[in-house]
Amino acid sequence: MNNDDFQSWAHRGQMRVESMLDRLLPESSVLPSRLHDAMRYSVLGGGKRVRPLLALAAGELAGADSDRVMPAACSVELIHAYSLVHDDLPAMDDDVLRRGRPTCHVEYDEATALLVGDSLQSLAFEILASSPCKKRVEMIRLLAQASGSRGMAGGQAIDLESVGKNLELPELEAMHVRKTGALIRASVLLGAYCGETSEAELGALDHFAKMIGLAFQVIDDVLDAESSTATLGKTAGKDKKDNKPTYVSLLGPAASRKMAQDLFESALSALEGFGNKAQRLLGMADFVVQRQF
Amino acid sequence: MNNDDFQSWAHRGQMRVESMLDRLLPESSVLPSRLHDAMRYSVLGGGKRVRPLLALAAGELAGADSDRVMPAACSVELIHAYSLVHDDLPAMDDDVLRRGRPTCHVEYDEATALLVGDSLQSLAFEILASSPCKKRVEMIRLLAQASGSRGMAGGQAIDLESVGKNLELPELEAMHVRKTGALIRASVLLGAYCGETSEAELGALDHFAKMIGLAFQVIDDVLDAESSTATLGKTAGKDKKDNKPTYVSLLGPAASRKMAQDLFESALSALEGFGNKAQRLLGMADFVVQRQF
Repeated sequence: MNNDDFQSWAHRGQMRVESMLDRLLPESSVLPSRLHDAMRYSVLGGGKRVRPLLALAAGELAGADSDRVMPAACSVELIHAYSLVHDDLPAMDDDVLRRGRPTCHVEYDEATALLVGDSLQSLAFEILASSPCKKRVEMIRLLAQASGSRGMAGGQAIDLESVGKNLELPELEAMHVRKTGALIRASVLLGAYCGETSEAELGALDHFAKMIGLAFQVIDDVLDAESSTATLGKTAGKDKKDNKPTYVSLLGPAASRKMAQDLFESALSALEGFGNKAQRLLGMADFVVQRQF
Repeated sequence: MNNDDFQSWAHRGQMRVESMLDRLLPESSVLPSRLHDAMRYSVLGGGKRVRPLLALAAGELAGADSDRVMPAACSVELIHAYSLVHDDLPAMDDDVLRRGRPTCHVEYDEATALLVGDSLQSLAFEILASSPCKKRVEMIRLLAQASGSRGMAGGQAIDLESVGKNLELPELEAMHVRKTGALIRASVLLGAYCGETSEAELGALDHFAKMIGLAFQVIDDVLDAESSTATLGKTAGKDKKDNKPTYVSLLGPAASRKMAQDLFESALSALEGFGNKAQRLLGMADFVVQRQF
């Protein structure tokens, strides 16, 4: 795999996502202006766009034209962005820094941040309903399940309950499968749904997505423990300060990195049958595990 | 129109909605338990179910079997329920009483209430994606637009900005068209989409829904000003205390009641061409304007 080539593919994807999100979000001049301004602030101009890139990479594997995947790619990013805005609120993780800038409720106010999150979620489903993919109804159902109380929002609820508790590894995993894993899995599957895949192929992609989702979270924990706030663009060392159970607190940093590597290899093995079509997803797996922020 | 007959129809509808919502909401035993318990607390066992009844009534007008309308009817109620939970939060309207019981964040906590609202919104789209109606993709798009920043959430943003300001009547209307009107309009149109209607008929229903949505809000303002907390099941006199512009503060109670009556008559006139098929929607219009809580 040519890394320069992947970098340039990922960069192009990020630009396209940014530009489409810019078009899809109402202009700040549209009433209510402050809300629309805050929505744009919370979505545009930052972020690694891991989830949209996963959707695009899975779409490429499934032979879907990338134009057809773009609405799905943007919808998962909007769900992700809404979750960050709500998770940062004082009643939740109470964070003031995100992507190197003040969080939405700090820059605007709490009520606006609440409505930003609510509106971004609605917009995600509005956009997915406009997807040209045949399976868009199944895609909407999948995204809704991944976002809701048995998915991402449920994971955040378990996370909040776990503060100060001694979770075992399986419980920690049960939390992350929901909190981060569900939306990463949905990103991969939504991309695949835009093309043609057999049931067996979808099963392999599902396994890939689960492994990558978990690896993503393990690395997140390592980075939170080992990186600086400047590098992360969000408050570092927060898990320890908040007394949150993490892979690092349970396993230590070295065993956590080893675990991420094992998950990475399991993810790669799931892609073996796809040959060269899996090139971008392999690149994404690498990107997720090697990232520094 | 036989009022006893309408009462019994509405009661049956409310029971069916309650029972389907009970089935659709995850059991409290499902992880995360506290979140699922709080979701059930916020949705079940109360409410007039005006929006689902409007969907069922419009479905009846369009010749749709009521079973086919039920998922859409439940989805609008879930959106409504999510908006109440978030609007009651301290950062928004800061209310402690709803449907005669402590609000969600009082009974549970703020973080849980946030996640309850988020999860109910996801669930609404999940359920609508499972609707058997042919036009379900258009229905999802309509519900998403009605809920988002150009609809209900946008109306709440304008409402928060308007506290202490002297709005003129057109500005007050622009707020309510979004805050209450958009979801009431969506409820009627979703029901109609489940059956067969011409473009002209949809136009008439759209006008009906707009008039009823506005009438609903005018009556809400009158009730807030004139009723007791015990009758309303939520804190009465809150608009005045919060220095919020309302129809009552702008027009006085008598002219507000007259306005509601005029809107009611305009709504009825939109249904003239439908003959007996409009029986339930006529009953709903009456229900909205005559209600005491």
